[in-house]
Amino acid sequence: LTNTSVTCVAAPALTAWVQAAFEQQGVAATDAAIFADHLVQANLRGVDSHGVSRLPIYLKRFAAGVVAKETRTTIEQEAAAFALLDGGNGSGPVVGIRAMQLAVDKARQAGVGVVGVKNSNHCGFLAYYTAMAAEQGLIGIAATSAPSNIAPWGGKVKYFGANPFCLAVPAGEERPVILDMSSSQVAKGKIMLAAKEGKPSIPAGWALDPEGRPTTDPKVALTGTLFPLGGPKGYGLALMVDVLCGMLTGAAFGPYLGDLYQEFSRNQNVGHFFMALRPDLFVSAPEFRSRMDQMIREVRSQPKADGVARIYMPGEIEDGVRAERTANGIPLTPEVYKELVALGQTYALPFPNPID
Amino acid sequence: LTNTSVTCVAAPALTAWVQAAFEQQGVAATDAAIFADHLVQANLRGVDSHGVSRLPIYLKRFAAGVVAKETRTTIEQEAAAFALLDGGNGSGPVVGIRAMQLAVDKARQAGVGVVGVKNSNHCGFLAYYTAMAAEQGLIGIAATSAPSNIAPWGGKVKYFGANPFCLAVPAGEERPVILDMSSSQVAKGKIMLAAKEGKPSIPAGWALDPEGRPTTDPKVALTGTLFPLGGPKGYGLALMVDVLCGMLTGAAFGPYLGDLYQEFSRNQNVGHFFMALRPDLFVSAPEFRSRMDQMIREVRSQPKADGVARIYMPGEIEDGVRAERTANGIPLTPEVYKELVALGQTYALPFPNPID
Repeated sequence: LTNTSVTCVAAPALTAWVQAAFEQQGVAATDAAIFADHLVQANLRGVDSHGVSRLPIYLKRFAAGVVAKETRTTIEQEAAAFALLDGGNGSGPVVGIRAMQLAVDKARQAGVGVVGVKNSNHCGFLAYYTAMAAEQGLIGIAATSAPSNIAPWGGKVKYFGANPFCLAVPAGEERPVILDMSSSQVAKGKIMLAAKEGKPSIPAGWALDPEGRPTTDPKVALTGTLFPLGGPKGYGLALMVDVLCGMLTGAAFGPYLGDLYQEFSRNQNVGHFFMALRPDLFVSAPEFRSRMDQMIREVRSQPKADGVARIYMPGEIEDGVRAERTANGIPLTPEVYKELVALGQTYALPFPNPID
Repeated sequence: LTNTSVTCVAAPALTAWVQAAFEQQGVAATDAAIFADHLVQANLRGVDSHGVSRLPIYLKRFAAGVVAKETRTTIEQEAAAFALLDGGNGSGPVVGIRAMQLAVDKARQAGVGVVGVKNSNHCGFLAYYTAMAAEQGLIGIAATSAPSNIAPWGGKVKYFGANPFCLAVPAGEERPVILDMSSSQVAKGKIMLAAKEGKPSIPAGWALDPEGRPTTDPKVALTGTLFPLGGPKGYGLALMVDVLCGMLTGAAFGPYLGDLYQEFSRNQNVGHFFMALRPDLFVSAPEFRSRMDQMIREVRSQPKADGVARIYMPGEIEDGVRAERTANGIPLTPEVYKELVALGQTYALPFPNPID
């Protein structure tokens, strides 16, 4: 996409508008504010697949009554180092920040905090939560189950989600390092985009057809399964995330998870796993921070392969996009822009003016 | 390799012989027994790269005085849910089982147990430790740093190890599920083997040459770097394992880790990370076990792609190899067999007779 085809909207105005749309749909004000912030933060980070383009589906689910309009979480079990949070079928991002904060609070006292979550919904992008921990000086870990998209290795029918997990580590003078990744080779969104744009092919190794054979046809790929990261290892990762998020917590697992886009008559019952660790468990905080800075600077200054302009730390590209989009606004594709403007008309909430 | 080119030796006889060789080299009896068991268990599991073929390098390191012949570990810091173990520069497998058991004991009390390890050595294959936890009914997690073999994404010089991590989860009637994987696309051992056998090429996507370009030449690959799993994600995984094993514990990180094969004048200072979780933190133990059994059976019975005989759970192939090799003995390649027979002559310890 070239700059001429996108419309840029300022993040604060977009956030306020998204929040108002949620509230118009009956979502409690606090929930609406968190959810709106989450979506716009995804766009700010450059993860447009998890940004405001998802607003319509979330509104549709609230309208269908399959997500609670006010998130009432309950701590069902608790000890010094762990807790189980019942998400009360509330908004994923609201449940997520409560669970991550609980893990952080436990880690501050016990050194490590593990919080399982059941009865939740799609919680967006995980770096949102782990960054909360890192900004408070702790190592944050998050994982979530997701609707089926990956077949067991050797199979041809989807069973596990492209279950993502994320780690964020604070440094000293440097920004936190944040690895936010799915268990699939690429996000399904990339294949959906290729199909939508009418591209004849996607790279080999992204997807399998409904018979479990490699395919480079984006339309066929969408009827098949996502290729697990690196092959059998990604299948194993997806399974293990499901163990931590589903098996451990009592939430749904594998194909029993409700689909975000296709099921409007039952809860998703998504499970999450959050963990925080104090980085100064074993070495002093200053030592940890200075060693992190040392590693980050050394890695960045490693000799580069031909044609590589810069070596990035995990999360660093997203930090750069955030700075740029904070300054210049969030670019929306013509499809997304049109859909949101129309939504604004339906809700009598004029969409924010584009940035010139 | 065909069956005619290998020599099969019974596991118990091999274990006793390896133990005797370690003792002959001055290693304390308990350490020698654990180390021997570890190596032969690797072979039994089919992970020959981590089996008795490594005995010569370990003996060489003991002889050079860079690994303590008796492992004296110290708990340097401790709380209900975590501990730091100083490995005393002892044998990796001895340090590893003590650390994993400590994590299990803590998890039994606190629900979760995290044990960091510094000042250790190469600890072999990680499933050895996580299986200990699973056999005791807990979820086991293990990770270790390793000598540099992976370049940062976009770089051409190795910085991180192909840092492996492993999760083991107990089930009910089914065997535990064990995912034991490195952060690289394939193990370096596979490339070394291809080069040794004079193969002209390895598959694309296994390695990069010293300029950071893809290569399929096994000899060139050995002078370059391992391709990280799935590309940038594997680089991120290697980094995060280094954070947990090196940064957190105070052990060496990145290129500061001593090389197993090439440095005989300093300690490796390998760091490990062990964690155990009670699976009945949030749901009852019977419920957890029956849900695991359900998932395992469902996954196994998923529709298969053409040409696929069977869908395996992570770790299931290794379980099958163990059963076969326990019955029929451990196959040794001509090179390894010859080397061990010669070693037996040097140590005046006749190598066990092959199985007919």
